[in-house]
Amino acid sequence: MPDTEGTLAERLLAGDRRALARAISLVEDDDPEGWALVREVYPRTGNGAVIGFTGPPGVGKSTLLAAMTKIERARGHSVGVLSIDPSSPFTRGALLGDRIRLSDHFLDPGVFIRSMATRGALGGMSEAALQAALLMDAAGRDVILLETVGVGQAEVDIIDHADTVVLVLMPGSGDSVQALKAGVMEIPDVIVVNKADHPLTDTMVREIRGVLSLGPRGDWRIPIVQTEAVRGEGVEELAEKLDQHRAFIDAEGTLSDRRRRNLMNEVLAIAAARMRRELEASVREDPAVKELLDRVVSRELDPASAATTILERSVA
Amino acid sequence: MPDTEGTLAERLLAGDRRALARAISLVEDDDPEGWALVREVYPRTGNGAVIGFTGPPGVGKSTLLAAMTKIERARGHSVGVLSIDPSSPFTRGALLGDRIRLSDHFLDPGVFIRSMATRGALGGMSEAALQAALLMDAAGRDVILLETVGVGQAEVDIIDHADTVVLVLMPGSGDSVQALKAGVMEIPDVIVVNKADHPLTDTMVREIRGVLSLGPRGDWRIPIVQTEAVRGEGVEELAEKLDQHRAFIDAEGTLSDRRRRNLMNEVLAIAAARMRRELEASVREDPAVKELLDRVVSRELDPASAATTILERSVA
Repeated sequence: MPDTEGTLAERLLAGDRRALARAISLVEDDDPEGWALVREVYPRTGNGAVIGFTGPPGVGKSTLLAAMTKIERARGHSVGVLSIDPSSPFTRGALLGDRIRLSDHFLDPGVFIRSMATRGALGGMSEAALQAALLMDAAGRDVILLETVGVGQAEVDIIDHADTVVLVLMPGSGDSVQALKAGVMEIPDVIVVNKADHPLTDTMVREIRGVLSLGPRGDWRIPIVQTEAVRGEGVEELAEKLDQHRAFIDAEGTLSDRRRRNLMNEVLAIAAARMRRELEASVREDPAVKELLDRVVSRELDPASAATTILERSVA
Repeated sequence: MPDTEGTLAERLLAGDRRALARAISLVEDDDPEGWALVREVYPRTGNGAVIGFTGPPGVGKSTLLAAMTKIERARGHSVGVLSIDPSSPFTRGALLGDRIRLSDHFLDPGVFIRSMATRGALGGMSEAALQAALLMDAAGRDVILLETVGVGQAEVDIIDHADTVVLVLMPGSGDSVQALKAGVMEIPDVIVVNKADHPLTDTMVREIRGVLSLGPRGDWRIPIVQTEAVRGEGVEELAEKLDQHRAFIDAEGTLSDRRRRNLMNEVLAIAAARMRRELEASVREDPAVKELLDRVVSRELDPASAATTILERSVA
């Protein structure tokens, strides 16, 4: 199909890759046309299975995504991969290298890969990422794999919009196991211990099992899957567990509950991010706000009172 | 001094412990009297040295705080300790046990210890915690130690308000080192490797040094201090490094820059948290908003458009 036939929305809904790429760029650039497009195609979303992968950097999530993509392709499914790169002036290169693992699939029209860089803690990132996931869904991708880097609650935002959440760890992920144990990290649906050829794998699996045994016992028993993604080992088993989880939430009716909660959180997150952005813009631009902050720094006016004044001004 | 003489603000400024405890409770309960109190005493803040300790759960932060408190007391300084407990229905006990480490100091009037439980990701927690830190400062505490649990960016909010930020790790903190390397975690001012009797300590220190060598080279060389907090080992050296850091930022003029940035972030964070809370309340209470969300779930209306409508309603 030539790139110029039909509107962008029509081409997107027909599954045109270039239209999808263009649409995501519009959303990423916060272009009103992008938002209009999501609005138009939204009724055609909700068909793809959205699977979120999270975990600390360095555990091999991208390699695992590449292996999962291979399996889904062999099953005849089209795949969309959305990787969220945490942005930092410190070392950009460390994570970009990972992306190369997915290069096996660059020429396959059934695979669409996109990386997005985060835009600051409360910024528009999760907003844009979630719109991108909707666009992939509307473009008919059967399976949408979201990848975020996170060891705490910061990335929950994005991953919370998945139907199934996979936490990827590796031997040596002691901090993450402690975070699970302390309740600082949400309990996922499936846990993967990657790089399972490491001698400390059994210890790690045992620790995780111990932590899970402390938690509330639901009807879904969280599987711990050992993988060596780089050789494809264990990835079939992971795919089976993901299918089982999907069948489970489908049967229980929890898929629709989950999606309802996720969509509500999404609406709130978008609204809150916009408010925050407007607030920050007003702080940068408004000389009266700058003066308020000067008074806070000189200890004349306390931060909470300054916040109250700013809120009153922005509403007025 | 009896508990009933003078206003709460006067007693607080005189260093009365019960007044301080009462004031923090007011702030924690979001009582208008608490906010009024902070407003009143704010001009008397800015004298205490605020040191923030962060790091994954289980590395021994509380033990380290207890040891640091002992040293500061020996130096004749009064100490305030504010621990932020991440709340989770999963396992509350895991962290509460840690607090017991501080019990050596419970009877010392020169030490004021307070724990606060987090109230959800964007909730009023950091808001209340920062007010509590201001109250400790106004009450004349020479040193204020903030403790938060975090392995990602989530807790940066709170710790960002410290003059000096200490990251506490232990051998096995592979995830945190990877997070530093990937730039997902902010670079602290001082790094502690606690539980340094572990055979893998040297490896951990070497890894951290490697990560730091990749970063931007500032004038402050980030020290890596090895401690065994449970035996008090290395804690003197940590105290010296903290003094050096303080002298450094004082001399460079960066202390006032830092505080200016921190206070500005604090104002923004308070304003954003309030907006978010009002938004969530409106969503719970407004039947029109509920209907909007139903239309999102039925894929009639996209999340961003729903957010726009909600924002228009709340401003109108």
